Amino acid sequence: MSWIVGVDIGGTNLAVGLVPETGGDAVALRNRATRAERGVEVVVDDIARMARSAMESAGIAETDVIGMGVGSPGPLDRATGVVSESPNLGWRDVPLRQLLRARFDAPVALDNDANCAVYGEWWQGAGRGSASMFGLTVGTGIGGGWISDGVLQHGVSDAAGEIGHTTVAIDGRLCACGNYGCLEAYASGPSIARRARQGVEAGTDSALLDLVDGELDRITAVTVFEAAVSGDAFADRVVNEAARTLGVGVANIINLLNPEIVVLMGGVTRAGDHLLQPLRAEVRTRAFRVAAEACRIVPGTLVETAGVVGAAGLFLQARRAGLVAT
Amino acid sequence: MSWIVGVDIGGTNLAVGLVPETGGDAVALRNRATRAERGVEVVVDDIARMARSAMESAGIAETDVIGMGVGSPGPLDRATGVVSESPNLGWRDVPLRQLLRARFDAPVALDNDANCAVYGEWWQGAGRGSASMFGLTVGTGIGGGWISDGVLQHGVSDAAGEIGHTTVAIDGRLCACGNYGCLEAYASGPSIARRARQGVEAGTDSALLDLVDGELDRITAVTVFEAAVSGDAFADRVVNEAARTLGVGVANIINLLNPEIVVLMGGVTRAGDHLLQPLRAEVRTRAFRVAAEACRIVPGTLVETAGVVGAAGLFLQARRAGLVAT
Repeated sequence: MSWIVGVDIGGTNLAVGLVPETGGDAVALRNRATRAERGVEVVVDDIARMARSAMESAGIAETDVIGMGVGSPGPLDRATGVVSESPNLGWRDVPLRQLLRARFDAPVALDNDANCAVYGEWWQGAGRGSASMFGLTVGTGIGGGWISDGVLQHGVSDAAGEIGHTTVAIDGRLCACGNYGCLEAYASGPSIARRARQGVEAGTDSALLDLVDGELDRITAVTVFEAAVSGDAFADRVVNEAARTLGVGVANIINLLNPEIVVLMGGVTRAGDHLLQPLRAEVRTRAFRVAAEACRIVPGTLVETAGVVGAAGLFLQARRAGLVAT
Repeated sequence: MSWIVGVDIGGTNLAVGLVPETGGDAVALRNRATRAERGVEVVVDDIARMARSAMESAGIAETDVIGMGVGSPGPLDRATGVVSESPNLGWRDVPLRQLLRARFDAPVALDNDANCAVYGEWWQGAGRGSASMFGLTVGTGIGGGWISDGVLQHGVSDAAGEIGHTTVAIDGRLCACGNYGCLEAYASGPSIARRARQGVEAGTDSALLDLVDGELDRITAVTVFEAAVSGDAFADRVVNEAARTLGVGVANIINLLNPEIVVLMGGVTRAGDHLLQPLRAEVRTRAFRVAAEACRIVPGTLVETAGVVGAAGLFLQARRAGLVAT
């Protein structure tokens, strides 16, 4: 049996696991803090060590490992394997693929972290077996990925999938990117938290302030979801507004791409039906009926391992396209 | 040499031409009014007669014609060849492909008219040779089509490409479809004309009223474009507003799909640089730089024949997919 090492480099967490070439969830999963502040060499050493440790514990020989797929934040060039910029990790023009290849005796492929999470859900998660899937990762930012006929669509310059920075409100809220009315300005975790803090500050009656012991700054999207789930009317209204705006983004995707399935990933899915129900209602209002009826809208199922599994899956796609360091 | 009959069924004009299987512009083009009000039988008889007339005049034998590709308005089922609804033509559940097959001795394939126009521009027009193209048809309505790796993407239920009914202004103008803030409500021909009429009615200084001899109802989008081109400041402002909103839609496509080229088609292209310059400026503001720089935004080049050429081209795609009546 052949295996692929899947690597998910997050802003705070680094995960490494082994995925069967024929598909399956990750085994022998290793997690640790991403020590980006100590330099890229430390991170690639960590990855190599975690990969060896995983192989040993799973009893998998080096000769049975056909390659390594790596998901990294920030714009990157799949052809050269260079991460051009990753503000979270403090990286700039890092030849990540080459650095890893020097420490690991098998081909290495690189892809964007959101692409990996989306592909993982298509390959082994909620989108399994579907002809076409759009995945949205809704957390600190909002990213996405489009899979058609089993192939993740990178676009002509590896920049596709940026649903978070599509405009849904032409004269709307200022987004962190500098534009107005991006989906991300309404439905990302920080946007939801900000909206809740503003309401509480303005004196809206809510249990939120108690949940954070009166410390306004400690209100996060997760606090808001928890308050909504436990019946707080204001928190529910905030979640509802974010969900409806997210529904506009999903309706746009459905009208444009007519996918078989839309999969929601990331922290925002913790709000469960408080998010999904108004989101689906907005989609029913705005998307064409034939397209809306053809499309399931569901949360991801892999959660923690989507990035590792998807990085391994995209290694295979990259190998077919000749985009691996051999 | 093998040929395909291309058919473009418009609301007012019916066009038939012959297209080489290996590609090329349409020859022996036939045009006449679409006699939809006299029933579908009259229209299919017209098509069969026009096809024979084209073959005769071009000196092409029946044995050299490998099939017929037909572009029709309205939602349709490519698998069954039935047009489920076309308000413009007054059709409902019309088995168009079967009716044509009974009058024409070669395989017949059916597709949506906007898809045909977009595919024509990719196959033989402005998008020729590109790896990926999004085409927008901006006229009475706003439609679109997405071509990736040379294949028009129909979506899972033949409903993809509806860029006109993606939301760009969540609480914006009411659209004919019943929703608020659709791109079509801002940038279609009728939307542009309505905006201009409202301005003139409100007393805005403009040469528009003279251009239509004082008859407000005669102001169309074309009138507005002509006035803008000839220096009318108000008309230029109306075109500018539509162009910027269209630019938001194009920026959304670029951020989502990262295409090599975006091709604009339909009446709106008559405004030329008055439309293209503000549109491109809005895209530069809103789209990610790497994606915006990778994408050309140009008007179509086939204009009148895009639908006929694309219908013929999509016949070949449909034949590969087994979606022809043989």
